[in-house]
Amino acid sequence: MTKKNDITALDEVAGNGLLSRRLLLRGGVAMAGAASTLVATHGASAEPLKEPEWSRYQGTTVEAMGRRTKHEKDTARILTNPKGEPRTQHARTPHHLLNGQITPNHLHFTILHNGIPDIDPEQHKLVIHGMVKQPIVLSMDRLMRYPMVTRQTFIECGGNSAALFSNEPVQANLQSLHGLVSNAEWTGVPLSAVLDEVGIDPKAKWMLVEGADTAAITRSVPLKKALDDAILVLFQNGERLMAEQGYPVRLLLPGWEGNMNIKYVRRIKIVDQPALTYYEARNYSPLLPDAKAYRFFFVNEVKSFITHPSFGMKLNEPGYYEISGIAYSGAGRIERVQVTADGGRTWADAAVQGPTMHKAFTRFTIPWRWNGQPAVLSSRAVDDGGNIQPTRDEFVRERGVTQKPVTNPFGFPNQHYNSLTSWGINAKGEISHVYA
Amino acid sequence: MTKKNDITALDEVAGNGLLSRRLLLRGGVAMAGAASTLVATHGASAEPLKEPEWSRYQGTTVEAMGRRTKHEKDTARILTNPKGEPRTQHARTPHHLLNGQITPNHLHFTILHNGIPDIDPEQHKLVIHGMVKQPIVLSMDRLMRYPMVTRQTFIECGGNSAALFSNEPVQANLQSLHGLVSNAEWTGVPLSAVLDEVGIDPKAKWMLVEGADTAAITRSVPLKKALDDAILVLFQNGERLMAEQGYPVRLLLPGWEGNMNIKYVRRIKIVDQPALTYYEARNYSPLLPDAKAYRFFFVNEVKSFITHPSFGMKLNEPGYYEISGIAYSGAGRIERVQVTADGGRTWADAAVQGPTMHKAFTRFTIPWRWNGQPAVLSSRAVDDGGNIQPTRDEFVRERGVTQKPVTNPFGFPNQHYNSLTSWGINAKGEISHVYA
Repeated sequence: MTKKNDITALDEVAGNGLLSRRLLLRGGVAMAGAASTLVATHGASAEPLKEPEWSRYQGTTVEAMGRRTKHEKDTARILTNPKGEPRTQHARTPHHLLNGQITPNHLHFTILHNGIPDIDPEQHKLVIHGMVKQPIVLSMDRLMRYPMVTRQTFIECGGNSAALFSNEPVQANLQSLHGLVSNAEWTGVPLSAVLDEVGIDPKAKWMLVEGADTAAITRSVPLKKALDDAILVLFQNGERLMAEQGYPVRLLLPGWEGNMNIKYVRRIKIVDQPALTYYEARNYSPLLPDAKAYRFFFVNEVKSFITHPSFGMKLNEPGYYEISGIAYSGAGRIERVQVTADGGRTWADAAVQGPTMHKAFTRFTIPWRWNGQPAVLSSRAVDDGGNIQPTRDEFVRERGVTQKPVTNPFGFPNQHYNSLTSWGINAKGEISHVYA
Repeated sequence: MTKKNDITALDEVAGNGLLSRRLLLRGGVAMAGAASTLVATHGASAEPLKEPEWSRYQGTTVEAMGRRTKHEKDTARILTNPKGEPRTQHARTPHHLLNGQITPNHLHFTILHNGIPDIDPEQHKLVIHGMVKQPIVLSMDRLMRYPMVTRQTFIECGGNSAALFSNEPVQANLQSLHGLVSNAEWTGVPLSAVLDEVGIDPKAKWMLVEGADTAAITRSVPLKKALDDAILVLFQNGERLMAEQGYPVRLLLPGWEGNMNIKYVRRIKIVDQPALTYYEARNYSPLLPDAKAYRFFFVNEVKSFITHPSFGMKLNEPGYYEISGIAYSGAGRIERVQVTADGGRTWADAAVQGPTMHKAFTRFTIPWRWNGQPAVLSSRAVDDGGNIQPTRDEFVRERGVTQKPVTNPFGFPNQHYNSLTSWGINAKGEISHVYA
């Protein structure tokens, strides 16, 4: 039941061993393998299958909440403040150990400035007031009766990847570098349905959204976005929101910087101008090389990075590997991802996993035959608005870098890094972070 | 910034208050509300927002693994054998408490016959042998080097919904009735890529797949399915498989009955005929009214049920509600879902949440204005192959029912129920399970 393959499919499509994504069609991989080192180890007969211990005894009991295997305990978030001292706490997603597109809820990144509030959903209320015909107070029971929508989307902290503003590549793994972005299926009430009910004054242009956590995070959001695709989220990957994600209700602004997706939302005030809150006036207004502030730039622009192989992994032998990564754009749908294995000299199109969704993670893959020589891997994504991930040269010219190498990857003031990430592989198969 | 609505959108589109799905477009809901009872409680000014306790103190500390809020502890699976006695253990998904399409990993249904094996991924091997050119033994490290694909798909136990074979409606909630189906994003190696490498004898037609758990679950699978869309799954919703879902590797046969999706797969033998294993010869061969066996019927046929409102919930007042549910088909993509509020006399099209994916959960919703009188809600799905969920009359005629009411919903020998589920609502807003 096997079929012959077109031998031309074995042709490299870009330098240093990148193979055609058509090889991912059935039958192609065996051919790619046959041309060099096979993935498989042959000879089942030489190694009879032994009956292992776990096939002989009753296993552990199924519980009301499924538990993860102990063998994957390293698949966890890394923390910046594990003792919960009275300052910001970050938890980063281990993208190098995950695959697919969904981030499981317990591994979704989070940032909290005063810990996780324990909010009683029976008491929590959402008030909408200001420039409206009828202010309303919504209990969670009431909110649950509105129509709901479901969509997959990523949320990314504006400060994700800040280490890449260093003028020397910080030697850290994917989780440290890019762990402040995650992707989930969110379900909740379109904000437009509620705003229609209160009746917005035509002179209003913004809304001020406030959280019920102790930090009382408050951000100004243009009403245009609020009425476009904003959601009052109640469910995350099918179940009610995690406490650290804003239970019982958070604002979701698909594709806009994480901090604006106000958690524990308790108040929405309809107003006619932005309030210039702490986060708007300081954190999210870094200076550009031309001394202007990078202010009110809300969209997480098109971006991608390779997850496998990546920093900290090792290629043990030459031969076939799959290069796999994540692409996303806060401006739309991923249309194309290109990959290079020679540091940007030549590029080839990766296969993009469908269905591609607007403002959601998109997995890309491309087959690769490593010849055992040094290589530099990188990816570059394009969205359906024609936005292309900038090269590092282009990005640095416009946005600048810090002047000296910084060893703490968490201390950068810079925001919205969306240029390339490059992995250098040496002849031993070891992988480092490089700028290419 | 609100806009006028077409007043005709308020027209009922089917009996007993079903409203047009077009109302779910922006602006529609407020109109639907204005026409009867509003969802919102007005008067923010009459109830000043108080500062709650949780806004005043440092919250709890962010941990490496995110934790769920204690307020949702009822969102858990129900178990048939919580002490892990040496017999089958079932854990059912609480669909009535979830929303969206993804089932979180710790709430995915599972069935195990000898508990959960603790398998060391360093030692586990997968052997492929039989009618092949080159048998192979794959370590998990080797398997991870193959190309991977990601897809969302449901898995359903053939015995899900067995209580509906009773000739009287069993009074139990959605989780008890339909909790043996769940939906996840699975990532792994297409089985065809590995089978191509071993080289299948053209005379082979089936494969025998064996698990490494103590029950050594073994099923025969047609090679046609194996080469179509079967996957050796390594990741579930982004992270490595849950132990109870087959860690380190399970077979996924999208749309085919759960038991064939062999967990802990350790052996695939390529053969020329089915082996008639225990599960093939007994469990999945129930007798039909015409005394023939219902055998080798692998596909989970088109099906749907309403999750909100459903058994055990209560409507506290007349007015606007959203009817929401899940539809899926092991034969393809959900194309259409119809809902009735008058026990099947009249039907209206529900809105179907996109993107709809092949052999995956699809969420449907329709706005409804309950007038406080008795109503019977039900849903009926159609897939892109034109398969329609059968009415109860049609189903019973072909497949039969048990002759007396049964109070234990877990003891039925019958398989593959895919007819309608109906919820009866009385004038108090209480919901019971009815046959309509």
